[in-house]
Amino acid sequence: MKFTMNRSFLQNKLATILTAIDSKVINPIFSGVKIVAKATSLFLTASNGNISIELEIPSADKDAELIIQEEGGLVLPARFFNSIVNKLPQQEVVVEQMSNQQVAISSGSALFHLNSHSANDYPQLPKVSQESILEIPVHLLEELISETTFAASKQETRPILTGVHFVLKDGIFKAVATDSHRLSQRILPMDTKDTEFDIVLPAKSLTELSKTFRNKDEFITISMTDNQALFKTERISFYTRLLEGNYPDTDRLIPKEFITSAVFDSHYLNAAIARASLLAEKATSNIVKMQITAQRIVLSSQSPEIGYVEEELECRDVTGEDLTISFNPMYVQQALQAFKGEEVKIQFISPVRPFTITPLNEKPLIELITPVRTN
Amino acid sequence: MKFTMNRSFLQNKLATILTAIDSKVINPIFSGVKIVAKATSLFLTASNGNISIELEIPSADKDAELIIQEEGGLVLPARFFNSIVNKLPQQEVVVEQMSNQQVAISSGSALFHLNSHSANDYPQLPKVSQESILEIPVHLLEELISETTFAASKQETRPILTGVHFVLKDGIFKAVATDSHRLSQRILPMDTKDTEFDIVLPAKSLTELSKTFRNKDEFITISMTDNQALFKTERISFYTRLLEGNYPDTDRLIPKEFITSAVFDSHYLNAAIARASLLAEKATSNIVKMQITAQRIVLSSQSPEIGYVEEELECRDVTGEDLTISFNPMYVQQALQAFKGEEVKIQFISPVRPFTITPLNEKPLIELITPVRTN
Repeated sequence: MKFTMNRSFLQNKLATILTAIDSKVINPIFSGVKIVAKATSLFLTASNGNISIELEIPSADKDAELIIQEEGGLVLPARFFNSIVNKLPQQEVVVEQMSNQQVAISSGSALFHLNSHSANDYPQLPKVSQESILEIPVHLLEELISETTFAASKQETRPILTGVHFVLKDGIFKAVATDSHRLSQRILPMDTKDTEFDIVLPAKSLTELSKTFRNKDEFITISMTDNQALFKTERISFYTRLLEGNYPDTDRLIPKEFITSAVFDSHYLNAAIARASLLAEKATSNIVKMQITAQRIVLSSQSPEIGYVEEELECRDVTGEDLTISFNPMYVQQALQAFKGEEVKIQFISPVRPFTITPLNEKPLIELITPVRTN
Repeated sequence: MKFTMNRSFLQNKLATILTAIDSKVINPIFSGVKIVAKATSLFLTASNGNISIELEIPSADKDAELIIQEEGGLVLPARFFNSIVNKLPQQEVVVEQMSNQQVAISSGSALFHLNSHSANDYPQLPKVSQESILEIPVHLLEELISETTFAASKQETRPILTGVHFVLKDGIFKAVATDSHRLSQRILPMDTKDTEFDIVLPAKSLTELSKTFRNKDEFITISMTDNQALFKTERISFYTRLLEGNYPDTDRLIPKEFITSAVFDSHYLNAAIARASLLAEKATSNIVKMQITAQRIVLSSQSPEIGYVEEELECRDVTGEDLTISFNPMYVQQALQAFKGEEVKIQFISPVRPFTITPLNEKPLIELITPVRTN
C-alpha cells in the first residue's frame, strides 16, 4: 500500500472518524484506524465496538490531492497516526507500507516509521440491509438529536432509558427520551406511509452521530437490522448497535388538560432560572420554587447557609388557578435550551403532576418535567 | 454600607481579585471577598493566605458608575458573589447591607440576600514598607516572569527551588529559576545603583501576579519586608509571602566555553522536537536524540512498541566537534517558547554536560538544560 495526499485534508477526515474511538477500548484492535487503498478511493474505518464509522475519500476529490500508488490495507495506531499527521511539516504526506510490518509516513524531512497491524485483524463492519427505509436531511436529524438525547438517562439501572426511542409509523417519525424524571419528544411528519420501524438507539451514539456529519445540506439514509442501525451519506457510513428491550409506553405520560399556564421568552426564563439556582448549588437538594398568581409569577430559592434569591418574572397570558410548584432547575434549563430563544408555553396540572413546555410556534416538540414534592 | 455600580465593571474587577482565591482554603474567611466602601472609593480584597490582592475603585472613575451611598465594610462569599454578579439581568447593581448580617444585591427585578461576615473578621494585609525600592514597567516584569517561572521546581522536596530568585545588585536585576534539571536566567540592567535585594518569590505567586496586572503600560513598584513582597500600581496592591532559605549559587552552573554550536529558528526547532517526541510519549523515558555532524543535524526518537522517527534539521552556522546528545524534549520545548520565534544559538560541551540556549539578539536570557545520559 502506498498513497500520497494533502495533510490538512487527511487531518480533517481523521478528526471525523476519531469520534468513534474510545480511550477505554476493550479490544486493543479498536485503538487502531483501518486504512484501505483501492484503485480509486481511500477508506478509513474506526470503531469502539458500539459505533463504527467508515469514510470514503475518492481520488476524484480535488481537495484530497490523493494519489493511490499501490493498493493495500493495514491498521495504524489511531491516536499516534492522528498526532503525527497534525504535526507534519509540509502539506504533502506520503504513507507507504514497508516489508517489515512497518509503515513509513513522510512529509518534508520528517520521517516516521510506525508498527502496524494487518487489515485482516480488523473486525468486519456489520452487515446492514442497504435497502433505504428512511431518508432525512442531516440538519433535521441533528435538530431532533439535540432536542431529545439530553433527556435520556445517564444511569445504567434501567439500560433501555439510556436510549432514544425512534418510531416510524403511519407517516409519523417520533423521537422520545426519558429518564423517568423528565421526557422530551419531537415529532416529524414524513412522506413515506409504507415503512415502519421501532428501535432504541443509545443516546451516546446519537451524540457521536451529530458530530460525524458535517455537511448539513446532505441527506442521510437510515437503515437497520435487528441489532444495528446504519446512517449513511454518500461518503460516510455510521454504524451503531441498538439497545435491546421494550421502551416504555410514553404516550400515556403526556397530559392533555391543564389548569394553569403562562407564556415566556425561553432565553429570558432560562437566565432567570440560572440566577435562582445559583444559591441552590450547594444546598442538599437543588430546588427552585415558582409561585404563580394572576398578578405575578415569582421564582425563588434558598439555602440557609448562603442566603436566598427571588425574582419577579416577565411573562404573558397567565391563565388559570394560582399554583406554587418546585422543580430541579437543571431539568428545566436543559429543556428550555431546545427552544433556542423562542417563546414557550408552560402548562401545569397541580404541584405534584408533571408540567409541560411547548413552543408557541407550530413545531411538534414537547418537554415534560416532574416537579419536586416539598412540604 | 450601600453602593450602586456598573455590573460589567464590577464583574471585571472581581475576576481580577479572584485570582487570589483558592478552592482549597485552609481558613474559611479566605473564601470571602472583603468589600469596603469609603467616601470616594470602593476597596475589594481577596487572599489565600499566601498572596493577597487589594483593588481600589475610585468613584471618580467614570466607567465604574460608582455611587457610594453609605460607608461600611463586610465580607461576602467570593464565588457566590462573583457568580451572582456574572448573571444579574441589568447593568445597574445595588449592594446594601441589611440589619440582620445579610447583604441585599439587586439588579432589575432580581434580588439576592447573601449571608455576610464582618469586615473585622478579615485578616489585615501585611505591613510592607512603602518606600519604593524598584520600579519597572508591567510588561517587562511579565516578560521576566514568563521567561523564568516555568523552570522552577514543581516538587516540594527542595522547597526553595519552587521559587524564582530575584536579585538586585550593582544596577543589575537578575531573575533565575532552576529545578536542578534545567535553569532559566534573565537579566535586566537597571538605572538604580544604590538599592539591593535578594529574595525568593514562589513561582506560583509570580504566575498569579502576571494575571493580575492587565494594564501593560503602567509602572509597578516592588517593595518588601523580611517575609513579604508588595507589587503595587496606582490601584492594585499584590502581596506575596517570600520563600525562606538560601537560594543555591547558580552563577557557577553556567558554562562559559563550548565545543559545538548551531543556530536554529526557535519556532521551527520547537515544532521539530514536538514531532520527534510524539513517539516518546508512551516510552518509559521520554528522550529525543540529536546527532550533530559537520554535514547535518538529525533529531530522532524511538519506542520499540510504536515505531521510530527521524528528521534532518534546518540550521546554520554549525561549528565544532561532532556530538550525539539525548534530552527530555519537554525541557527544551519549554525553554524555546521563551524565545518567541527568534533565532537561537545552542551550545554544547559534551554529551553529559548541560547545554545552553541563548538568543542571537542582545537580550540577556540564558536557558540551561541537563542532557539525559544514555548507553
